[in-house]
Amino acid sequence: MKSNFSLSGMPDFAPFQMKRRQYVLSIIEKKFIVFGFSPISTSLVEKRSNLFGSYGEDGEKLIFQILRSGDYWNKASPKVKKLTSKTLSPLISNKSLRYDLTVPFARFIAENRASISFPFRRYEIGSVFRADRPQKGRLRQFTQCDADIIGSQSLWLEVDLINLISTVFNMLKLKDVTIKISNRKLLEGIFESFSSNLNFSQFCIVIDKLDKAGFDKVGELLLDGGLSKKDVIIIKNLFLFRGSFLEKKDYVMSQLNINTKLKTGFDELSFIFDKTDYMLLNNSIELDFSLARGLDYYTGSIFEVVSSSNNIGSLVGGGRYDQLTEKFNLKNISGVGVSFGLDRLCLALEESNLFPKELDDSLKFLFINFGESEAKVANSYILKLRDLGVSAELYPESLKLNKQMSYANKRDVKFVIMIGEEEIKKDKLTIKNMLSGVQELISFKQLIKKLRIGR
Amino acid sequence: MKSNFSLSGMPDFAPFQMKRRQYVLSIIEKKFIVFGFSPISTSLVEKRSNLFGSYGEDGEKLIFQILRSGDYWNKASPKVKKLTSKTLSPLISNKSLRYDLTVPFARFIAENRASISFPFRRYEIGSVFRADRPQKGRLRQFTQCDADIIGSQSLWLEVDLINLISTVFNMLKLKDVTIKISNRKLLEGIFESFSSNLNFSQFCIVIDKLDKAGFDKVGELLLDGGLSKKDVIIIKNLFLFRGSFLEKKDYVMSQLNINTKLKTGFDELSFIFDKTDYMLLNNSIELDFSLARGLDYYTGSIFEVVSSSNNIGSLVGGGRYDQLTEKFNLKNISGVGVSFGLDRLCLALEESNLFPKELDDSLKFLFINFGESEAKVANSYILKLRDLGVSAELYPESLKLNKQMSYANKRDVKFVIMIGEEEIKKDKLTIKNMLSGVQELISFKQLIKKLRIGR
Repeated sequence: MKSNFSLSGMPDFAPFQMKRRQYVLSIIEKKFIVFGFSPISTSLVEKRSNLFGSYGEDGEKLIFQILRSGDYWNKASPKVKKLTSKTLSPLISNKSLRYDLTVPFARFIAENRASISFPFRRYEIGSVFRADRPQKGRLRQFTQCDADIIGSQSLWLEVDLINLISTVFNMLKLKDVTIKISNRKLLEGIFESFSSNLNFSQFCIVIDKLDKAGFDKVGELLLDGGLSKKDVIIIKNLFLFRGSFLEKKDYVMSQLNINTKLKTGFDELSFIFDKTDYMLLNNSIELDFSLARGLDYYTGSIFEVVSSSNNIGSLVGGGRYDQLTEKFNLKNISGVGVSFGLDRLCLALEESNLFPKELDDSLKFLFINFGESEAKVANSYILKLRDLGVSAELYPESLKLNKQMSYANKRDVKFVIMIGEEEIKKDKLTIKNMLSGVQELISFKQLIKKLRIGR
Repeated sequence: MKSNFSLSGMPDFAPFQMKRRQYVLSIIEKKFIVFGFSPISTSLVEKRSNLFGSYGEDGEKLIFQILRSGDYWNKASPKVKKLTSKTLSPLISNKSLRYDLTVPFARFIAENRASISFPFRRYEIGSVFRADRPQKGRLRQFTQCDADIIGSQSLWLEVDLINLISTVFNMLKLKDVTIKISNRKLLEGIFESFSSNLNFSQFCIVIDKLDKAGFDKVGELLLDGGLSKKDVIIIKNLFLFRGSFLEKKDYVMSQLNINTKLKTGFDELSFIFDKTDYMLLNNSIELDFSLARGLDYYTGSIFEVVSSSNNIGSLVGGGRYDQLTEKFNLKNISGVGVSFGLDRLCLALEESNLFPKELDDSLKFLFINFGESEAKVANSYILKLRDLGVSAELYPESLKLNKQMSYANKRDVKFVIMIGEEEIKKDKLTIKNMLSGVQELISFKQLIKKLRIGR
């Protein structure tokens, strides 16, 4: 039941959802750490100028802009007659919500370069924002879990990230997952081997539509872009071709005019496919020529993980970027990283029924409130139990017993403790096991003993 | 070294800072859980109208407003001539960054009332935003850790929250901490016992200045507000009076004209002071008449925690609110909560040197890269170590040994592993303990054995 007080695509999470998110996060974070990544956190708000120019025209439209504080209208003193939203925005907004964790990371690197030893492995888990049309698997606020290594061009890092992806999915028990790999240089090589009226960026945008629009539409757009019918058929066959990495490579080499970019792209991919330990991978891994990914900043490898049993878009995305820190006055620093989408992972696990059943949020002890003086005794026991690391609370009001018991049931409490006049006299407490219904009168010492055994 | 790419008051956190934050958070979260609180998470962005009207005029100025997406200027079609920032903002902005976690919680309660069993204990840890002038201990993005109980008026809940505060500060080992308590009704009672030209809200704003401006300034403002010189002296003496809760109560009762609000305020405080177990409290707890707290929504108890050894403002704030959910069409729901300021707590622990030394972020194993084929062998061991839960990484490039060792030193690596031609032949690896400098040739099996013992 959503009221008109909440924003579409900006989700809240109730306790049962939080437990699930914490379960997925704990697996991802544990793996990040054993892979040598250190945590950082960047601000949720960035300078507007840090973000504009980094995500391509389509991406830019999705950036949330924040109004300047104070009397922005007076300060901007816009020449009102010619104004449009596009020309006004930079005058009255100087901050934006971050769009991903990668550009803020590039800024962080540039600002902290003096104290960082490269290659630097960092992870960051946090919210990002995109003013997209909300739908299943697409939110306006969502959580990314990023692992990047910056400061080395070594392709071993790509191998490491594939292993990271694989081990996370193994732990999550998510099957039917495919790790798709390509390389921007390969795509550039393919692009250059045909003549057309498109530039590379336009070509990527067309190719990117393959998933959603299908090849017929893509073929049309390529023809419109000036490719010959013959070339469009070659491209279609390329995308349709099924086989191992080496078979795909041989096929491309036999069909296209070889150029330097094509060769470099395949050399890099060969290294990666050769070093990937297939014995350890439980997920299939494949070269996908059509992998373009919208983000402007990728220059080398591109990754994407999709699940064939869930139709919720990519679960992981990533790639290599060579120029991302240049915007922040730091040149020649190559980085590569992957981003796990927490919200989509949770959706996939939910649909495949993969959340452990024991992710409950129940309370161990509820103490019944029999009035002020009894409650005072109860409260002293509660504080002792909490000190021992056990969750316990006092029902705050001395309502009728059945009302308090009804709360205990709803709250899924393990044990209810009753301390009335009688118990206080005997220096004991009545404990009721809510699962078995068994009730007994014991001392606090016996309760502690029981607890230790019970665990 | 801050560049002009980052925003003042919107901090990033490097790995060593993250480890410290995680240390404090783990203590707070653990205590929240044993106190029976369940986690929720609300969206970082709220409808603009949810926030405006909740924080008083001064608070409202600090709300970050987000521009509508798309062609907002065209849609708003503002009548340009009369425009000011104040009249324009609601036309071109419909979303804001959240200002605290309490109003979003009230919205959450109202929207999810059907599935919640009251009294409901929730905790939330997350970023909030205020467009304040940044200074030490005052950021524009900061992290609050909130614990609230909603759906009961019982003062046992106040007692519980005081115990929560106390146990968290004990665990953090932060000394010289005072838990200050007051009650809005008491302050209203004091206000009503004098005649002036002020309303209660104005009176609170004046009293709130005591900390920063001192009593002379406050006295002036009260005189300006129409209080008599005699009354101002009574108020001054009230604030200066030192003593136990009962002594303070007796003093007020002897000095002021008793009214209902004054009586109710003291009744509530008496319950709380009576039930608080001083044996368990390691922190001092005192009634502070001057505690007003700016937030408009408090109606009963008010809490604040300050440290006398650190001049960084309040570390915890909170109180009881009776009408907060009314804005979201849910009446007669009383709530009470406290909010720990993570950033200030970290500052206080840092200044008092209270962070444990072992909060390091070091890597257990760095494998030296001697070239492609050796690295392939190294990588297979790395994957095995990670599966065992141990952090390990391969130096990504086969640079000269001294360069790789220098990285190992900077990274504070525990063990460096070398696998060259010789080691591969013997099916062993050379392990160097970076602390002792001792180097030995052992099998992987021996390494695992060593690890188990070493831990």
